[in-house]
Amino acid sequence: MNVPERIHALRLLMEEKKIDAYIVPSADSHQSEYVGEYFKARTFLTGFTGSYGTVVITLTAAGLWTDGRYFIQAEKELAGSGITLYKIGNPGVPTIEEYLDSVLPQGGILGFDGRMISMATGKNFTRTFAEKQISLEDRYDFVDSIWTGRPSLSKEPIFLLEEMYSGESTISKLSRVRDAMKEAGASMHILVTLDDIAWLLNFRGNDVAYTPVALCYAVITMEHVHLFMDEEKLSKEIREHFAENGVVLHPYDTVYDFVADIEKTETVLLDPERFNYKLYCSIPPQVKIVEQRNPTVLMKAIKNETEIANIKKAHTKDAVAHTKFLYWLKTRFGKEPITELSASEKLLQLRAEQEGFFSPSFEPICAYGAHAAMCHYTSSEESNCELKEGALFLTDTGGHYLEGSTDITRTVALGNISDRLKADFTNVLRGNLALANANFLYGCTGENLDILARQFLWNAGLDYNHGTGHGVGYLLSIHEAACRITWKHTKEPSQVFEDGMVVTDEPGIYVEQSHGIRLENELLVRKGPQNEYGQFLHFEVLTYVPFDLDAIDVSLLSEEEKKRLNGYHKQVYEIVSPHLTEAEKDWLRYYTREI
Amino acid sequence: MNVPERIHALRLLMEEKKIDAYIVPSADSHQSEYVGEYFKARTFLTGFTGSYGTVVITLTAAGLWTDGRYFIQAEKELAGSGITLYKIGNPGVPTIEEYLDSVLPQGGILGFDGRMISMATGKNFTRTFAEKQISLEDRYDFVDSIWTGRPSLSKEPIFLLEEMYSGESTISKLSRVRDAMKEAGASMHILVTLDDIAWLLNFRGNDVAYTPVALCYAVITMEHVHLFMDEEKLSKEIREHFAENGVVLHPYDTVYDFVADIEKTETVLLDPERFNYKLYCSIPPQVKIVEQRNPTVLMKAIKNETEIANIKKAHTKDAVAHTKFLYWLKTRFGKEPITELSASEKLLQLRAEQEGFFSPSFEPICAYGAHAAMCHYTSSEESNCELKEGALFLTDTGGHYLEGSTDITRTVALGNISDRLKADFTNVLRGNLALANANFLYGCTGENLDILARQFLWNAGLDYNHGTGHGVGYLLSIHEAACRITWKHTKEPSQVFEDGMVVTDEPGIYVEQSHGIRLENELLVRKGPQNEYGQFLHFEVLTYVPFDLDAIDVSLLSEEEKKRLNGYHKQVYEIVSPHLTEAEKDWLRYYTREI
Repeated sequence: MNVPERIHALRLLMEEKKIDAYIVPSADSHQSEYVGEYFKARTFLTGFTGSYGTVVITLTAAGLWTDGRYFIQAEKELAGSGITLYKIGNPGVPTIEEYLDSVLPQGGILGFDGRMISMATGKNFTRTFAEKQISLEDRYDFVDSIWTGRPSLSKEPIFLLEEMYSGESTISKLSRVRDAMKEAGASMHILVTLDDIAWLLNFRGNDVAYTPVALCYAVITMEHVHLFMDEEKLSKEIREHFAENGVVLHPYDTVYDFVADIEKTETVLLDPERFNYKLYCSIPPQVKIVEQRNPTVLMKAIKNETEIANIKKAHTKDAVAHTKFLYWLKTRFGKEPITELSASEKLLQLRAEQEGFFSPSFEPICAYGAHAAMCHYTSSEESNCELKEGALFLTDTGGHYLEGSTDITRTVALGNISDRLKADFTNVLRGNLALANANFLYGCTGENLDILARQFLWNAGLDYNHGTGHGVGYLLSIHEAACRITWKHTKEPSQVFEDGMVVTDEPGIYVEQSHGIRLENELLVRKGPQNEYGQFLHFEVLTYVPFDLDAIDVSLLSEEEKKRLNGYHKQVYEIVSPHLTEAEKDWLRYYTREI
Repeated sequence: MNVPERIHALRLLMEEKKIDAYIVPSADSHQSEYVGEYFKARTFLTGFTGSYGTVVITLTAAGLWTDGRYFIQAEKELAGSGITLYKIGNPGVPTIEEYLDSVLPQGGILGFDGRMISMATGKNFTRTFAEKQISLEDRYDFVDSIWTGRPSLSKEPIFLLEEMYSGESTISKLSRVRDAMKEAGASMHILVTLDDIAWLLNFRGNDVAYTPVALCYAVITMEHVHLFMDEEKLSKEIREHFAENGVVLHPYDTVYDFVADIEKTETVLLDPERFNYKLYCSIPPQVKIVEQRNPTVLMKAIKNETEIANIKKAHTKDAVAHTKFLYWLKTRFGKEPITELSASEKLLQLRAEQEGFFSPSFEPICAYGAHAAMCHYTSSEESNCELKEGALFLTDTGGHYLEGSTDITRTVALGNISDRLKADFTNVLRGNLALANANFLYGCTGENLDILARQFLWNAGLDYNHGTGHGVGYLLSIHEAACRITWKHTKEPSQVFEDGMVVTDEPGIYVEQSHGIRLENELLVRKGPQNEYGQFLHFEVLTYVPFDLDAIDVSLLSEEEKKRLNGYHKQVYEIVSPHLTEAEKDWLRYYTREI
C-alpha cells in the first residue's frame, strides 16, 4: 500500500466506528521524543520520517503538523501524498485544536490511540471541544489494523549503570523522589517516561533507537517500586539490584490493570505532560491526583559532580574523534571523492574507536550545501551526494559513552566559499560565542538568554526556526527536559538555570536551496561569584572542537569576539592535541591559530 | 505624635477591634502608583516617603516592605522608628503573605482599609489564610482616626484633551472598549484606575501630584458611562463633551452603593490587579464577573500616530531645555556654587520656558555623589549639598507637556573623575546603547530583551536592583502599565512589544556610600521589515540629549559601540542645535563630537 491507500484504509475503519477525525502523533506510550520501530505509526501512515509531527485524518482531508526543523523535509516527503502540511508557529497556521474545532461537527467523535496522546492533550481536547459536545474515543489503534508486517515491540536486555558512572545510588535517588512525593502530599507516583525511570533505577536499555532506555512503567510507593517490564530483559545482576531497592516486577502491559486497582485512599503524583491519556483514564476517578512535573525531571537535569567529571571525559573522547574527522575531511577533500554518507561513516568509525563508546546519540545529520537548509536532514542512498568545492558541509552528530552523551554541530568550508557564506557563518559564530560567554544572575531562564545567540542574525533580518538550546541527558535522551534556551514562551514554565545543568548552544542560518549553517557546543552551567546582587552563574564549554577558521570573515569580529574565539581555540588545542598523531597535531595547531 | 506614638495609637484601635495585624499600603482607592496627599497614610504612619512600600503592624511588631529602588532611603527614614525593613526580592526575605502566615494566630483577624488593597491581593489573602481560618476585616481606616490635620480630598478642575493631542475621539475609544467587552462576554465594565478613565474620556485633571488625572470611577455599559466624579471639577465645555458621549455623572463616593445595585443578569468585566477589594466585595455575589486586564491598558500603551508626532515635539522641547541645562551646569560649575536644589530649580525653570509645559512628570531626582546610590533619592533642605569636583551628578527628571510626557536620566562628570567612575559609566552606557539598537521579532517581551542592557554589568559582577524599562503615558502616568523591560518573571504575563509603544531604557549602577549612575532614554517601538521569519521590530530613540563624553572611557567601547554613540550624538546635534544660542551651539557641537 502507498500512503494514499493507507489513508483510504484508515478512513474505512473510521467510517465503520463513526469517527469524524483520527489523530496519529509521533509518539509511543511513554511520551518519548524518539520512538522504537513498533511505534512509528505516523511515519507508516504519512511517509514523513521526521521525529516530530502529528497527522490528523478526517473523512475528506489529511493534515500534518510539524515544526520549523522539518518544514523543508516534510514538504518533500509529503509531495503527492494528498496530505496538507501545517507549519507550526507560522503566521495564520491553525493549531491542531483550532483545526479540529473548525472541522469537527457538533456532537462528533474524535479518535486516537489513548496510549499515544499525553494526558494534558487529552484533557485539553475535552475542554476545547466541550461546547461542541465532541466525544473522545481512545480505544482504537487503527494503524495496527492496516500495518501488515509491523515490527514487534523491542525486548533488548538492560544493564546496570554503576555508581562510578551515575554518581548516586538508587536508594538515594528513591529517597529524594519520596521526599518530593511527601512534599506534594502524595502516597504514590507513577512514571511513564523511560528516561526518568532509567535514571531513577540506574539502568540503561536498548529498546529505542539512539536512546538507551527500556520499555517500562513504574509505580512508586513509599515502600516499593512496581516496575512493569518484560522479565526477559533482565540479567541476574539486574534482578539483584532491583531486589535490593524494593523493586517488584510485573509484565509490561499489566500496568493499565494495576492502576485501575489503585485504592481510593491513595494520592497519586503524576506529570500531565509526561503521562499517557489512557493510563490517566484507567485510574479510578475517586483517587486524588496531584498534577506536577515529575520530580526526576529536575533531579536528572542537574548533573552531579561524578557525572560532570565523566561528561568531561566523554567530551574529550568525542572531541578527539571529531578533530580527527575534520583533519581527514580537510586534508582528503579534493584528493578523493567524499560523500555525505562516506563522511558520516568516517565520523562514526572514529567515534567507535573511542573507549566506552556505546552508540550514536541521535540520527546523524551530514548535510552538504542546500541539504543543510533542512535542519534535520538525513542523507539516504537516494539523496547522498559528493562534496564539492565552494560549499559548506554541516554535521550534527553525537555519541553515547558510558561517561555521558554528546551533541555537536560543526559546519566547514569546502575550499573557497563566497563572502555571503562567510558572513552568515561569522554571524552564527558570534551568537554562539556571545551565549557561551554570558554571565547572569540566578533566576534567569533560557527566555532571558536566547537573544544573546540570536542578536546578530536579527540585526541582519535573519532568524532560525528552532530553539537555541536544549538539555542533554547522561547516556539518556539527547533532548532532555527541563533546561532549554528559547525566546518564545512555551507551555511549561521556563526553567531557571541551576548549577550542574547541561544545555546546548546552537544558533544557525538556513537558506532554502542554498545553504545551512549551525554551530553547536554543549555548555555546563556553573556557579560564579555570590555578592550583594545575588548568585552569578556562567557557562563552561564542554565541547572542544575547532570552528572552521576558513569559513570566518575576521573583519566582522570585534576585538572581544576575537579574544573569545582565540581563547576557545587555545583550550581546544590543549585538550585535544595530546591524543593526536603529529600530522593531526600540526593541522590542529594551524586551525586553532590566533586570529 | 512621632512615628512610634502613631503606631502605638493604631495598636490601641487594633486591640479595640480585635485585629491581629493591620496593613497600610502606599495606595489610594484607584491602585495608583503616585497618590494624592489625602492618601499618604503609609507615609504618615511610618515616616518613609518613598512612592512604594507597605507597612504591616501587629500588636508587637511593625515591618515595612519596599523594593530595590528604596532600600537605602528606607533604611535612613525608618531609623529609630522601631519598624523593620523587609527588602523585597532579597534572598531569605519573606513576602508579606509569608510573614502574615507566620505571625497571624489560628482564627485571627487581618485588618485593612478595603479601598486601599487590590482585589487580587484581597482574594489572595483569602486563599492563603484559609487553612488558618483567618478572617479579613476591610472596614476600618484606622490611620484616619489618628491623623489630625489630614489633607482633604483634592477637587481640582479637569480639562478636555483635544483630538489634536489625543488623536482619537472618545466615541471611537468607547466603541473599541465595548467591542472588547462583547468579546469577553461582558455587559458592563468597571474602571477604577484614573489614567484608564482619563485616557478613555479624553480629559486630564490635577488631583494627584505629577499625574494629571482626577479622582473618579467609571462604570461602562453598552449605552452609557456612569462617571463618579465631584461635579465641581467640571467646566461647561467638559459637561458638554461628557453629554455628547453618553456620560452620566454621579457623586464620587456613591460608586460603592451603585455597584451594590448591579442587576444579577449583568456580566461585569474587571481587572483584579486594577480594582479595589472593597468595591469588588460590594458587587452582589450573583453577578457574573469576567476577570481580565482592562482593555484600555493595552489600547493606551499603543500610541497612535497623532500622539507619536506630538510626543516627538514634546521630546524636542524637553531636549532643548535639558541641553541648555547641561550647558549651564558644565560651564558654570566651578565658577559659582551649584547645589542639588539649585540645579533642580534651574532645570525646572528651563523646562517651564518651553511652550505647552504643564508640570514635572514625577518628583525630580537630582543627586550628587553618594546620594545617587539611592535610586529614588529626593533632595531636601536637609540633605541638599553643593556639587564638587571629581564626582558624578545624576538627574532623573521629566516634564508633562500637552504633547506628551518625558522621562530622562543623565549622569554627568563634575571635573575630572576616577577611572572606576568612568568604567562604570561606560558599562551603563554600553547597555543603554545595546538595548536601543536591538532588532527583534514580533512576539518578544521585555524578558527577552533585558539582558542586552544588563550584560556588561553582569559580566563585571554588577547589577541594578530595578527594571530596565517601563511604559510611559501620554500626559498621564510616567510609569504606565503594559510595556515593561525586566528579566524577572512578574505576576502579570509579560507583554509582547507592539508597534507604537513607548518604553524607557535605563540601566544603572549604584554603589552605596560612593556613587550612582543611570542613563535613561525613551524608546518608541517601530515596525521593521517583515519576511519569512516574521515581523521584525526595532526601537526609535525619542530622547535627544548628549551622554557626557567627559565620563566615558573610550577604550572600553567597541568600534560598533562608538559608531552607535556617534550616530546618536549626530542626531542630538541636528535636532537640538536650531533651538540654541550660538554659545550653547558651540558647546553642544563639542559635546556631540565623534569619538
